[in-house]
Amino acid sequence: MGIEKIKAGVLGCTGAVGQKLIALLDKHPLFEVTEIAASERSAGSIYENTVNWLEPNDIPGNIAGMKIKNCSPDLDCKVLFSGLDSKVAGEIESTMAENGYVVVSNSRNHRMFDDVPLIIPEINAEHYKLIDAQKQNNRKGFIVTNPNCSTIVLCLSLYPVYKSFGLKKVMVTTMQAISGAGYPGVPSLDILGNVVPHIPDEEAKMETETLKIFGKYENGKINFADFKISAMCNRVPVRDGHTISVSFETEKKATADQILNSFDEYNTEFLKDTGIDVIRYFENPFRPQPILDAGKGNGMTVSVGNLRECRVLDWKYTALGHNTIRGAAGAAIINAEYLVKEGLL
Amino acid sequence: MGIEKIKAGVLGCTGAVGQKLIALLDKHPLFEVTEIAASERSAGSIYENTVNWLEPNDIPGNIAGMKIKNCSPDLDCKVLFSGLDSKVAGEIESTMAENGYVVVSNSRNHRMFDDVPLIIPEINAEHYKLIDAQKQNNRKGFIVTNPNCSTIVLCLSLYPVYKSFGLKKVMVTTMQAISGAGYPGVPSLDILGNVVPHIPDEEAKMETETLKIFGKYENGKINFADFKISAMCNRVPVRDGHTISVSFETEKKATADQILNSFDEYNTEFLKDTGIDVIRYFENPFRPQPILDAGKGNGMTVSVGNLRECRVLDWKYTALGHNTIRGAAGAAIINAEYLVKEGLL
Amino acid sequence: MGIEKIKAGVLGCTGAVGQKLIALLDKHPLFEVTEIAASERSAGSIYENTVNWLEPNDIPGNIAGMKIKNCSPDLDCKVLFSGLDSKVAGEIESTMAENGYVVVSNSRNHRMFDDVPLIIPEINAEHYKLIDAQKQNNRKGFIVTNPNCSTIVLCLSLYPVYKSFGLKKVMVTTMQAISGAGYPGVPSLDILGNVVPHIPDEEAKMETETLKIFGKYENGKINFADFKISAMCNRVPVRDGHTISVSFETEKKATADQILNSFDEYNTEFLKDTGIDVIRYFENPFRPQPILDAGKGNGMTVSVGNLRECRVLDWKYTALGHNTIRGAAGAAIINAEYLVKEGLL
Amino acid sequence: MGIEKIKAGVLGCTGAVGQKLIALLDKHPLFEVTEIAASERSAGSIYENTVNWLEPNDIPGNIAGMKIKNCSPDLDCKVLFSGLDSKVAGEIESTMAENGYVVVSNSRNHRMFDDVPLIIPEINAEHYKLIDAQKQNNRKGFIVTNPNCSTIVLCLSLYPVYKSFGLKKVMVTTMQAISGAGYPGVPSLDILGNVVPHIPDEEAKMETETLKIFGKYENGKINFADFKISAMCNRVPVRDGHTISVSFETEKKATADQILNSFDEYNTEFLKDTGIDVIRYFENPFRPQPILDAGKGNGMTVSVGNLRECRVLDWKYTALGHNTIRGAAGAAIINAEYLVKEGLL
Repeated sequence: MGIEKIKAGVLGCTGAVGQKLIALLDKHPLFEVTEIAASERSAGSIYENTVNWLEPNDIPGNIAGMKIKNCSPDLDCKVLFSGLDSKVAGEIESTMAENGYVVVSNSRNHRMFDDVPLIIPEINAEHYKLIDAQKQNNRKGFIVTNPNCSTIVLCLSLYPVYKSFGLKKVMVTTMQAISGAGYPGVPSLDILGNVVPHIPDEEAKMETETLKIFGKYENGKINFADFKISAMCNRVPVRDGHTISVSFETEKKATADQILNSFDEYNTEFLKDTGIDVIRYFENPFRPQPILDAGKGNGMTVSVGNLRECRVLDWKYTALGHNTIRGAAGAAIINAEYLVKEGLL
Repeated sequence: MGIEKIKAGVLGCTGAVGQKLIALLDKHPLFEVTEIAASERSAGSIYENTVNWLEPNDIPGNIAGMKIKNCSPDLDCKVLFSGLDSKVAGEIESTMAENGYVVVSNSRNHRMFDDVPLIIPEINAEHYKLIDAQKQNNRKGFIVTNPNCSTIVLCLSLYPVYKSFGLKKVMVTTMQAISGAGYPGVPSLDILGNVVPHIPDEEAKMETETLKIFGKYENGKINFADFKISAMCNRVPVRDGHTISVSFETEKKATADQILNSFDEYNTEFLKDTGIDVIRYFENPFRPQPILDAGKGNGMTVSVGNLRECRVLDWKYTALGHNTIRGAAGAAIINAEYLVKEGLL
Repeated sequence: MGIEKIKAGVLGCTGAVGQKLIALLDKHPLFEVTEIAASERSAGSIYENTVNWLEPNDIPGNIAGMKIKNCSPDLDCKVLFSGLDSKVAGEIESTMAENGYVVVSNSRNHRMFDDVPLIIPEINAEHYKLIDAQKQNNRKGFIVTNPNCSTIVLCLSLYPVYKSFGLKKVMVTTMQAISGAGYPGVPSLDILGNVVPHIPDEEAKMETETLKIFGKYENGKINFADFKISAMCNRVPVRDGHTISVSFETEKKATADQILNSFDEYNTEFLKDTGIDVIRYFENPFRPQPILDAGKGNGMTVSVGNLRECRVLDWKYTALGHNTIRGAAGAAIINAEYLVKEGLL
Repeated sequence: MGIEKIKAGVLGCTGAVGQKLIALLDKHPLFEVTEIAASERSAGSIYENTVNWLEPNDIPGNIAGMKIKNCSPDLDCKVLFSGLDSKVAGEIESTMAENGYVVVSNSRNHRMFDDVPLIIPEINAEHYKLIDAQKQNNRKGFIVTNPNCSTIVLCLSLYPVYKSFGLKKVMVTTMQAISGAGYPGVPSLDILGNVVPHIPDEEAKMETETLKIFGKYENGKINFADFKISAMCNRVPVRDGHTISVSFETEKKATADQILNSFDEYNTEFLKDTGIDVIRYFENPFRPQPILDAGKGNGMTVSVGNLRECRVLDWKYTALGHNTIRGAAGAAIINAEYLVKEGLL
């Protein structure tokens, strides 16, 4: 009504993350998609004629007939959601930020830059202070990023423990959905009835991003957290939802009840604001499961189950999150929402 | 020709493991299936009219028309391969052993008994000495067992390391095939496109059985190995082949080359006898995969890949084995073959 | 507000259809679930402690703690939605109807009874007149049924053609989802990566039900339609959504445009009332697909695509519908809604 | 021993069909692979370094280190097995045949040429007489082709009926495996838990190829069979094995027993030569199934089941064949074997 929405553009609009961004931004209370842009191959064509639309809902009516533009600094919008392929994201996102856009990126390229915040707002919104550093570096706009999809599921489930008890060691094995590889992504001959025990660079991303996210902002930079973390990443024949088996050792010893309480208190803190669980714990050890639980909280809830003692570290549990919503497009959007809330956008 | 085969019976002949035993024993050079037996529900009927045969090859011609008998001590055979359900295996196997049969069992019931050898012959054939203890306990025959399917994959891939460098800590996460749950087993609504992050009792089996298998026989009993081991077990939509992500810390530090050499030397030791790899290592980090590799070595080879450093323990790798062959029916048969070779059968 | 909801009971509340009924009736504008009932095995226990809940949304808050009752005529409600297993549905539904309840059943038992309407309200609401015949047969209440899940997809996609041009011959091959078999239903070993080319009784159901549904009510009975119809039914590894390949020959020859117009006109007739497409036609020959389209119209839309000439009959097309919503629970609910609309409930 | 094998080349050696050709030709009694060739992109490199090998058995030892050559007329071999992509197969195969090679092709390009035999040797070996026509057209060598994978399954199951009773009408709906689309082929996001109801050009291929195969050679050309045939083609999440639902009307009416006898007699004719069933009929209506039956007869048997009356045409049944063996690479090899047997190679 009286409130004008913020003009938003979607970079990489034909890709899997771009499509999910467009789907999730439809009728969003704060943002209005006024521009869609992609690589030169698609630029100039009409969206519905070009995109291989994979979302279950139809292309939003106002987007279907929109013309795809180039990713250049003449887009009529204030914020750019980037689902660009990492082959091109680096340069484009930098250019757009230099030209005054607020770039909210899901791409990996800038995540580990010293002056770029790598944000899960429920964990480290304080890192937004890095934006000032970027502004000093000749940028009229700035870039904020969200982590890798698997990293997000791990961090959200582990942060209450870290906050309450500290962490010494974390081991995580992932079973990741095919939608995480985009489209066409994983050939069906590789994954139907199969497990692929390697996802290039994924283990390194989980290990390094987690330590940055759990780090502390001090004097214009992030002091990384310093526990040990090791990831083993696998692809499984699941459409949506990354399942992870996690084991951890805390600094301060904790009982199962204390850990469950830490989940509960952490969740309660956000639930009252949004009505959506950040973490949901299942008593049933057979849960969470991707088919049943990836969509919990409109895909924004990370589900956790089966907390039990570990004979090597202290405790182990299963966690699950929707990789293209909580782990990608939804992560970018929640970042932008926090920027608005904190007056940064 | 001149060599007479040993008469063998299959207990639990209609179940998934029983079927695989019958398939693998067809035309076996040492054993001839002369009896098939099952629970009272099936006993008395003709095999091909009763079994829901799930093997890709047809029911062996000599078995198809055979009458299913009760699991009682009037079976005309010397060795009994048991694929019985654990609900009934305990009592039946004991009775049969007391009556003079050699029971080679895949069932869990007797695995952890003090006087029952839990054998992977390439690792702990020395444990067969426990048979003497059984004989002193009023048994005319005896029972030998093979481990749980996941345990076997773990142990075969880990034993060369243990033997060469010792072990302090082992963490393993499994992604297990549906055939491990028998038939009807896992409902399709539970597993199609899904992960089920819990398999009752499986983690405890892996943790305890491994320490027994790696234990030392001394004075009529097994002194268990004493490293720390923790397992997280998941079911994935794969038909055959358990994939496991393993991380470990050795007692004596080892380089990647030394570990790969330990695999290689261990494999060479058995390869010359059987022409089949016990362990096969893949340089390609995307391997092993269930679809491509579960059948290696007629399903008896454990495949290993992607050895890499671990930031929490020392090293990590992927391993894979065929759960119903190397992990069950084939494991029982190789046990019986070793019994023959050592003059115990 | 001022309108009081009609008290409803769910028979077979723990089964797959019963669960879907409970999920779809949650916050329904006309009905309020006041009773849940099941077989004697479950009766007496609390719903959330007994049910193996398979729906992605949680058990509705007012149902979770509800006590499961017996399926006997002391339930406090006016209408009974029945998802009972066909082994018990016959007798229970008869008894309940005799005792004054309006039974809206998804079970097969009464579908082909002379005095029981077999209804797809968008096609043959006129058949509700059979209710009078039932009332004359000593029933204080009555039974109405919806067709088999595959039949519904076929009939809704074919009815516009039948209405406009008549039908002489229909051939249909189905590729049916596993959820159609309930829980535990199809064992995963039977269907993962597989096709099962037989579903007992399914072909006969499709062939006979279709002719009743397309029949004419005259003088207290249904005169069946009299075209030739043949069905071949297969199970495929899809969770939700029956896909069917249909070929047909019309009485009066029609062009592709005329057939597409018949879809369009038929759809328009209902769309203005409900805002939901009954039929949606896709130009893209690769559509409809279960993953992308089974959920269209909240699962109530039947999707059709790829109309093309047939070299044996006249035309062929693909159709798809959500088997547990449009084909089962949603079909029952839309039946009850029409009963209310027509003053019969 | 004394018999020298015929030198063979594989065109398109890195593709899915090329790999299967290499796997099936390993240790073949008649042929020895002396050359492997591919598009310019791969030519010049060593096979094992270039191919993304997808077969469960390892690359044959003599091929692994072989250099991939260009598809040009300097290859040292007599027969060329072609698994070339249809984008390039047309020109290359023509050139090779003109230069004296015997080209045995699985590619679609030449199948419908007037002077090219389209062969299933168990059906129409007489069509090899077309080779003479080719030789008159300036070819020093010649081309023979095998049909599309789905066509082969249809034709082999239908030919005994055609031969004994004639055919008036045939309707077929396919459920085709992903391996039929090659590698990378079908993206997993398109097919996991899904059905894709369209395969470009597939229906036309089945309809036209069948009539040529069942045609009669007369005076240097094929008179096509003249019954009506219509195909509806779907992709399903199955790795190997095309399942088809077939309905047909015969010229001369036949009983179920007569049809089953025609299968049996037809099969017997070939069984004595090869020891492999051409057709195998299952009494069990749940068979054939891809997982259980695609590998029957080393993948060369077409399995048939559930013959039953059809209310539109006369009879209907399910058939299944291994699409990359019986339907592609194995089909080419059996063609070449027949050429040798008939002295044409």
